[in-house]
Amino acid sequence: MWRELLPVGRDADGGGYHRFAWTPPELECRAWFADQARRRGMPLEHDRNGNMIAWWLPAGWTWRDGRPHRDQGAGPAGGDAGPEDAVLTGSHLDSVPGGGAFDGPLGIVSAFAAVDLLRERGAVLRRPIGIAAFAEEEGARFGVACLGSRLLAGAIDPARARGLTDGEGRTFAEVLHGAGLDPDAIGPDEDLLGRVGCYVELHVEQGRALAEPVGVASSIVPHGRWRFGFAGEGNHAGTTALADRRDPMIPFAGMVLAARAAAERNGTVATVGKVRVVPGGVNAIASSVTAWLDARGPADDAVRRTVDEVGAAARDAARPHRVTVEFAEESYTEIVDFNLALRDRLVGTLGGAPVLPTGAGHDAGVLSARVPTAMLFVRNPTGVSHAPAEHAETADCLAGVDALAAVLDDLARG
Amino acid sequence: MWRELLPVGRDADGGGYHRFAWTPPELECRAWFADQARRRGMPLEHDRNGNMIAWWLPAGWTWRDGRPHRDQGAGPAGGDAGPEDAVLTGSHLDSVPGGGAFDGPLGIVSAFAAVDLLRERGAVLRRPIGIAAFAEEEGARFGVACLGSRLLAGAIDPARARGLTDGEGRTFAEVLHGAGLDPDAIGPDEDLLGRVGCYVELHVEQGRALAEPVGVASSIVPHGRWRFGFAGEGNHAGTTALADRRDPMIPFAGMVLAARAAAERNGTVATVGKVRVVPGGVNAIASSVTAWLDARGPADDAVRRTVDEVGAAARDAARPHRVTVEFAEESYTEIVDFNLALRDRLVGTLGGAPVLPTGAGHDAGVLSARVPTAMLFVRNPTGVSHAPAEHAETADCLAGVDALAAVLDDLARG
Repeated sequence: MWRELLPVGRDADGGGYHRFAWTPPELECRAWFADQARRRGMPLEHDRNGNMIAWWLPAGWTWRDGRPHRDQGAGPAGGDAGPEDAVLTGSHLDSVPGGGAFDGPLGIVSAFAAVDLLRERGAVLRRPIGIAAFAEEEGARFGVACLGSRLLAGAIDPARARGLTDGEGRTFAEVLHGAGLDPDAIGPDEDLLGRVGCYVELHVEQGRALAEPVGVASSIVPHGRWRFGFAGEGNHAGTTALADRRDPMIPFAGMVLAARAAAERNGTVATVGKVRVVPGGVNAIASSVTAWLDARGPADDAVRRTVDEVGAAARDAARPHRVTVEFAEESYTEIVDFNLALRDRLVGTLGGAPVLPTGAGHDAGVLSARVPTAMLFVRNPTGVSHAPAEHAETADCLAGVDALAAVLDDLARG
Repeated sequence: MWRELLPVGRDADGGGYHRFAWTPPELECRAWFADQARRRGMPLEHDRNGNMIAWWLPAGWTWRDGRPHRDQGAGPAGGDAGPEDAVLTGSHLDSVPGGGAFDGPLGIVSAFAAVDLLRERGAVLRRPIGIAAFAEEEGARFGVACLGSRLLAGAIDPARARGLTDGEGRTFAEVLHGAGLDPDAIGPDEDLLGRVGCYVELHVEQGRALAEPVGVASSIVPHGRWRFGFAGEGNHAGTTALADRRDPMIPFAGMVLAARAAAERNGTVATVGKVRVVPGGVNAIASSVTAWLDARGPADDAVRRTVDEVGAAARDAARPHRVTVEFAEESYTEIVDFNLALRDRLVGTLGGAPVLPTGAGHDAGVLSARVPTAMLFVRNPTGVSHAPAEHAETADCLAGVDALAAVLDDLARG
């Protein structure tokens, strides 16, 4: 299963993945997902927001109109966790540019493997188990992370989502339309949310904090993205005197250094990993530089202070060069504390697995505002992620499958 | 004439030009050039290096085998300026990314207009007048400026040129082949050089140094391009502790600030206008950053010192972040002093036009190593160039045509 997915969207040389939402490599991953569901006789639900769910239905459930139904008295299920509510697991198939093999797909492959394990053991479900593949989790194409789960959970305005553009200027609405979805139908999906009793996402850990093969998440630290625009004046690199320049590259450089210093001061992390320079010629002073700041930290105020300090430093650096600076928040997620009861139940099922926070955002963080949510982490020996060198040992991955199977078994039978 | 060329390769919004060598907009400019030659009955010579020359031949000359021949006793012409040697003018059609309308095309449009003016006046030539369009002057596609004239003049190794790649990884050899040229045939063209008595290029001034409508160039200051590669370690922007990072963006930022400071110290100019960040994701620490430094100054040693200081600063900035730095010279042109006799002749013809140096590279700078060369500049009221706002007043452009016509008349009758 893993072997089929490995080559999709991978660099020939660097080994990094480039699976951006609705690009050919990601569509190939979706086809792989549909095929895995088909092989297991799991019907596939396509929601209105580009997410997919493969369902394992217990006795007494039938598939109708593209979604599961309970045979008797199955009125619209409420938000409470009754026996009709499904246990959802899964993750995402898309990647950052040059990403690793595990971030996202590990959760989906492990979910299919856990279903196989439970079936081998003859598990009898009381609730459906759904394996979800959420769309555009990384935000690598349209700039907003967890776009599919945000739309589903009502955590982003659908009109704003429709207008998001990719690097080539195509809107999210256009791309959805091209993929056969109706852009006007995106947005909160109370029917689907009402059918989900809880969500458990397995993910490779992205730092080095986990010393055992499998852990349980306590929280996702506050994190956000800010876009900085530096506007100067394009000109000739050879004939424009230093004093006549309005070069936006210089305050941009100051902002990069200020971000590192502000993170050190505030006990946060701050990263500039994406830059766009216009026009981008060797012999031309740039007319504008756009840079993205990713900032995260243990508490909201530390993150806010970091961003404010970077903004002030950028303005100070821009002024002597007669460059203007604007910065805007593209997304911000306050601290997410996962459901305590569910977390304790997982820890119990797993015989006392370690509990740890994470600095990485996940669909689980978005969904936790709407349904009880938990996460399992698989150890990352080097802590490298969002890079080709991302790795997890096979033994740890198998331990993750075992843990997920145990958790799903407990939740779907309970 | 100008009106037909204006829309080609222009941004719909910003008004900047994107005419990279052998891309569709530049090919359209070439077709325009061929059409202008055809309308004037000027046969078109295609040299082996992708350059084009439209010829106005005096009586006693015929067109044969794709080049001009003198009817009687026209053995291979020597390098000395005899009456059989042609007067070459022209410039280039390609642009930097988001470039202005005048840089390059003004010299070619003015040359055709000057030919029209001389013909209206019934000028009788003793020597041919050629209007050249040199290929890839800006180096915006393959990274080496004046590539067409460098090949013609033997100022670049043909094997190195063949291996140059564009932003999409296509080699110069592949692109030449695609354009119907033989990549193995590129290189110094002594036959063509031997037929050229002198070269006079008209160009829009790219700084604000020219106070009169038309000036004559004294020299091109030393200039070059250096590529800096910063290699760190790609990783997750949220889960990687500051102390664990090897973020190449930070020493890159230090290098940008060091370039400005070194230029101020050394009385030079230094510009970073092009940057490539890998992988370029918002939530990923970069694994590598490549940046290009353009440095120019009044003297070789000042430019060399500037680049050395930037290199040392980049290394110092990289060390604490465990980032490696490499930098390599992509091109360097020592000071070019234009032919003094020719320059004085132009100044005389123009009744004492001002003489000024320029910080911009030109095909004329390359050719001046092989044939007597001069340049005319047309005033640039704002000094903006390599940007959409580049401008020259119509009256100044017409003065440029008059000046070029006078110079060509003097040289081609002499």
